[in-house]
Amino acid sequence: MKPTVLIVMGSDSDIPIMEESGKMLGEFGIPFEMTIASAHRSPERVAKLAGEAEKNGIEVIVAGAGAAAHLAGAVAAYTILPVIGVPINSSPLQGFESLLSMVQMPPGVPVATMAVGKAGAKNAAILAAEIIGRSDAKVAKKLKMYKERMAEEIESKAKALNKGQRVKESKGQSS
Amino acid sequence: MKPTVLIVMGSDSDIPIMEESGKMLGEFGIPFEMTIASAHRSPERVAKLAGEAEKNGIEVIVAGAGAAAHLAGAVAAYTILPVIGVPINSSPLQGFESLLSMVQMPPGVPVATMAVGKAGAKNAAILAAEIIGRSDAKVAKKLKMYKERMAEEIESKAKALNKGQRVKESKGQSS
Amino acid sequence: MKPTVLIVMGSDSDIPIMEESGKMLGEFGIPFEMTIASAHRSPERVAKLAGEAEKNGIEVIVAGAGAAAHLAGAVAAYTILPVIGVPINSSPLQGFESLLSMVQMPPGVPVATMAVGKAGAKNAAILAAEIIGRSDAKVAKKLKMYKERMAEEIESKAKALNKGQRVKESKGQSS
Amino acid sequence: MKPTVLIVMGSDSDIPIMEESGKMLGEFGIPFEMTIASAHRSPERVAKLAGEAEKNGIEVIVAGAGAAAHLAGAVAAYTILPVIGVPINSSPLQGFESLLSMVQMPPGVPVATMAVGKAGAKNAAILAAEIIGRSDAKVAKKLKMYKERMAEEIESKAKALNKGQRVKESKGQSS
Amino acid sequence: MKPTVLIVMGSDSDIPIMEESGKMLGEFGIPFEMTIASAHRSPERVAKLAGEAEKNGIEVIVAGAGAAAHLAGAVAAYTILPVIGVPINSSPLQGFESLLSMVQMPPGVPVATMAVGKAGAKNAAILAAEIIGRSDAKVAKKLKMYKERMAEEIESKAKALNKGQRVKESKGQSS
Amino acid sequence: MKPTVLIVMGSDSDIPIMEESGKMLGEFGIPFEMTIASAHRSPERVAKLAGEAEKNGIEVIVAGAGAAAHLAGAVAAYTILPVIGVPINSSPLQGFESLLSMVQMPPGVPVATMAVGKAGAKNAAILAAEIIGRSDAKVAKKLKMYKERMAEEIESKAKALNKGQRVKESKGQSS
Amino acid sequence: MKPTVLIVMGSDSDIPIMEESGKMLGEFGIPFEMTIASAHRSPERVAKLAGEAEKNGIEVIVAGAGAAAHLAGAVAAYTILPVIGVPINSSPLQGFESLLSMVQMPPGVPVATMAVGKAGAKNAAILAAEIIGRSDAKVAKKLKMYKERMAEEIESKAKALNKGQRVKESKGQSS
Amino acid sequence: MKPTVLIVMGSDSDIPIMEESGKMLGEFGIPFEMTIASAHRSPERVAKLAGEAEKNGIEVIVAGAGAAAHLAGAVAAYTILPVIGVPINSSPLQGFESLLSMVQMPPGVPVATMAVGKAGAKNAAILAAEIIGRSDAKVAKKLKMYKERMAEEIESKAKALNKGQRVKESKGQSS
Repeated sequence: MKPTVLIVMGSDSDIPIMEESGKMLGEFGIPFEMTIASAHRSPERVAKLAGEAEKNGIEVIVAGAGAAAHLAGAVAAYTILPVIGVPINSSPLQGFESLLSMVQMPPGVPVATMAVGKAGAKNAAILAAEIIGRSDAKVAKKLKMYKERMAEEIESKAKALNKGQRVKESKGQSS
Repeated sequence: MKPTVLIVMGSDSDIPIMEESGKMLGEFGIPFEMTIASAHRSPERVAKLAGEAEKNGIEVIVAGAGAAAHLAGAVAAYTILPVIGVPINSSPLQGFESLLSMVQMPPGVPVATMAVGKAGAKNAAILAAEIIGRSDAKVAKKLKMYKERMAEEIESKAKALNKGQRVKESKGQSS
Repeated sequence: MKPTVLIVMGSDSDIPIMEESGKMLGEFGIPFEMTIASAHRSPERVAKLAGEAEKNGIEVIVAGAGAAAHLAGAVAAYTILPVIGVPINSSPLQGFESLLSMVQMPPGVPVATMAVGKAGAKNAAILAAEIIGRSDAKVAKKLKMYKERMAEEIESKAKALNKGQRVKESKGQSS
Repeated sequence: MKPTVLIVMGSDSDIPIMEESGKMLGEFGIPFEMTIASAHRSPERVAKLAGEAEKNGIEVIVAGAGAAAHLAGAVAAYTILPVIGVPINSSPLQGFESLLSMVQMPPGVPVATMAVGKAGAKNAAILAAEIIGRSDAKVAKKLKMYKERMAEEIESKAKALNKGQRVKESKGQSS
Repeated sequence: MKPTVLIVMGSDSDIPIMEESGKMLGEFGIPFEMTIASAHRSPERVAKLAGEAEKNGIEVIVAGAGAAAHLAGAVAAYTILPVIGVPINSSPLQGFESLLSMVQMPPGVPVATMAVGKAGAKNAAILAAEIIGRSDAKVAKKLKMYKERMAEEIESKAKALNKGQRVKESKGQSS
Repeated sequence: MKPTVLIVMGSDSDIPIMEESGKMLGEFGIPFEMTIASAHRSPERVAKLAGEAEKNGIEVIVAGAGAAAHLAGAVAAYTILPVIGVPINSSPLQGFESLLSMVQMPPGVPVATMAVGKAGAKNAAILAAEIIGRSDAKVAKKLKMYKERMAEEIESKAKALNKGQRVKESKGQSS
Repeated sequence: MKPTVLIVMGSDSDIPIMEESGKMLGEFGIPFEMTIASAHRSPERVAKLAGEAEKNGIEVIVAGAGAAAHLAGAVAAYTILPVIGVPINSSPLQGFESLLSMVQMPPGVPVATMAVGKAGAKNAAILAAEIIGRSDAKVAKKLKMYKERMAEEIESKAKALNKGQRVKESKGQSS
Repeated sequence: MKPTVLIVMGSDSDIPIMEESGKMLGEFGIPFEMTIASAHRSPERVAKLAGEAEKNGIEVIVAGAGAAAHLAGAVAAYTILPVIGVPINSSPLQGFESLLSMVQMPPGVPVATMAVGKAGAKNAAILAAEIIGRSDAKVAKKLKMYKERMAEEIESKAKALNKGQRVKESKGQSS
């Protein structure tokens, strides 16, 4: 099955973070491709990947990068596909600069910026699914089920916590 | 024509910012609706707007808010539509807290966060067009034209600057 | 005894922090209930918990959350009970965004925000006791004793430090 | 009627901000007293005001201060009444340091911190009302009405915006 | 005379800042060219300008940009010429994000980052002169004279201040 | 009378801020001298001023500077006199960087750092008086009187506010 | 020998940091006393310690505290002795809030703020010595020797590094 | 071979970071010298090193320092050579203050500031090579090769990742 999401990251050290995007897309049954390209070290590769993505059948691009994280913006410069950015915490400034580098895009070229790190990588996949879900009813359905499952998990965790409290109480402990 | 984008903002004082989204959607010929709802002052209205958006034919929701900007996240909690957040600079902390409140969403519920203020409001509309452009070829084409026009405008501005420099030089001025 | 304080947190990973609230309420003899609800993953559960708290006899709600910590604000949106927020340090940005997301509430819906992490969780319980102490003389008395005990502990620690210094001096050490 | 809320501020330059607290308490029919005391310039006055507040019938203390805003903490050190802090934006660092100085209280002595500036001053009064509302049913009722009115205002503003849009549309304007 | 410094900026709104670079280069007698190119709106123009700069006789490139200021990094990706970056204060976040976007370049592709705004634009020209001064003795000499002049100006300002103080004193004023 | 405090600032644009130090020293009857020297533009002047201060009878040096405010540290490097630093808000980053540049001195060379701007300039003079007051009983006495006066001023302002409130009340206004 | 410096800290967990002040004072032969007092948990103890310090022969007070570090300001409120503040890194916000809480004192009550953590604690002792050195020639002499020793240590470390480089080179290693 | 780059750092604890500059210069075949000098602890050594660098044949100075990192600015004050600054993450504030202390230089005295830590140290060497490459064709050629090698490495890493994905897929794993 041809990939509809392209996950690109600035360095192979970003794989442990960006794999979260891959896992989540897998759960939604969305085929994806994962690759490496650096806005600064291989700008032509970025231009080519981004410029050809649409005609290769890609629907959404997810770009993860740390430090002065220009990758998502560089990708967005070359495509009209939605570009989702994941700031990665890999410098002494803790990803804070990566977040600002991604989100403060100038008017004309948006990057859909997610939270720093793994939470952001996972959410990038969910946003990609939400976008794809606009024209793919199966993905939309899976998103609805995922949302319900999240609420149910909270309920079970609440029950487990409640049960733990009662056990403690019955043993005479106050909290 | 039924709106496909819902623009919601936390307060009527946000209108001058969020109008930028409306103007830009207008340029792409995307019908939209603009309304006010507050995550904190009218939570049930937010839940209703977000919960019913999909069945009302909305494809993308744009949410703009200032201060502890929970609106986009509150909307995202009730829908599987893509939600785009615009942090608004309306407190003494200059929108910095609004940016962080929007972008640092927990795993499971993404908000596609844009830059603070007008740049972000404009980009929210472009991202909405990019998403709609995935299934609407006319919008995709307009995006391509918009992208080309941006590059051309840079070229003309560069020429104007260059011309200005030459005029100065011919008059004997050094810069 | 029916709980008068409801402690709610966004995730079960917050339990080690929020237990500090529980322990402290236990010391003041205030019955409490601890549960899990997420503003984004289970918004209806939050609305229900907050909306029904008052009629269930709750006097104060303590809400702890990390990242874009909307939980306390979401709770406050549905109740006229005092809501105390505890920002939790669980993201690469170190709880800084959680603090801002909680404290910068818009006019109309306050969240009584505490310090980030365990110090905040402990203080949330003390503030809850101060509120309950307004109509419960026993709790007020316990608060007075707690305050005196804190001052006494400082005195004993000062004495212990002083003693240690003298011992060092008598052994010929300068500090 | 004897005041039940004491509003204290560090300097008379804070009056334009802290008046928001007064106005709001007035709306809830809560009698209050407003005064000036500085944690650094008149520490004994602060100690006396805070130390005697409870026996003078005060139920809640609201403290507003800018720069290294120690006032709320200094008040809290001398009382078991709930203390609400309002950081004031009056230095080149924009109230950011005042917020941190108030909210990061050490374990044992909470300050219920509000947003920076006028929003915070207004919310301080609402939180005070919520606390007083625990034992004063009239205040609780007014809070419920206030909450409903806020939601209604959002609805009317939304309608006004909607009407404005329709008028524009009927005149042929796109946004 | 062919330009040896290329000044490029992201938008024509940056001209008032970047003119400072031009003025300063003029003082050092260094020919320069000023143009506009946007990393996001005209990426191919940036690639071309940067890629051809060396063979066009450019020795140093100065790049000024605001918001998510990727321009300097995008230029640096395409050249082995020294690239000097000037962060420009043009967003609600006050150029802070532009500074971080420029300075936190990943290993392999440096950007010589200057202070935010006019101070930085002026210093970019001086650094360019320092670089060119390595192989152009006339520029090096001018730099030495400039450095001496700066020290002398401080001396004269100190004298003027001193004189002003004495006049005040002789008139009986204390400071 | 020979000056015992040397006030040095990095630029004549800092005079309006640093005059506050002068005024305050004048109130304490401490003779001072005010001059300009830049750590970067006239390093030898700084070295000379700082190196000779002690033998010229100076007891305390106050140094005010903006941006990367190295002046106070540069002075401290050349003297064993107490050096007081005043960060000045003169860049787009609002003096925040000046504060950090001054206060974060490495072990071995302290700078007694004050608040950003006028408050800091005034306090620098008071700290200088406190230091001089250690060996000059007249200055110590003036400090005590100043401290009492501050407390009294707070009392009068509180009375004025209180009177204003009563007048309002007697006219039937609620706050 | 009676102590001339009082070192006070907010909690016994601050001892490992504040011991650095003690060690350094020991090196200068300045007698000191170290104690614990909390601005919030034992405000009366702080008021007493600060209020009586001068008549007990104390010349300088060093105050170290973390979180909303009010201790130094609370001490300064009660004395005309120079007060030196050491912000301590003990919260998730890394001492950043402690620094701001100490340094941003309002006009009238200065705190001589040092760097965060051990560097600051050491420098507090050196600043205390510089102040005492104004009337104690022996301490002044020791400060001069300390300053010389620091410069010499840098020289020896530079020599050691240089020697290491030569050894490497002679063995054919490139750096 | 005489060194053309001088690497100076504020403390021997900075060696592990600044060695990255040395290694990289070694790769470009640029002879360098590494030494220690502190702007605050040995200001005369800094003045001498910087003041004599040019006549000793140095072309570029790299200065690395942590905390209130004045070293690079202090060096720049004494030379017209290009000075490259590397902020070092060695305090509780994580190098953030070092970055601001270096980059926010006042007009007249630039410091070419790099990223915080090892990335910055490596890039300092590359920028030095770019400057030297302006008059040394061999270095320029090595820079071109280095740039090509970086792009190739990205390609190989992308291939390796791609291969890993295929292997996983052929074994039936989804991501």
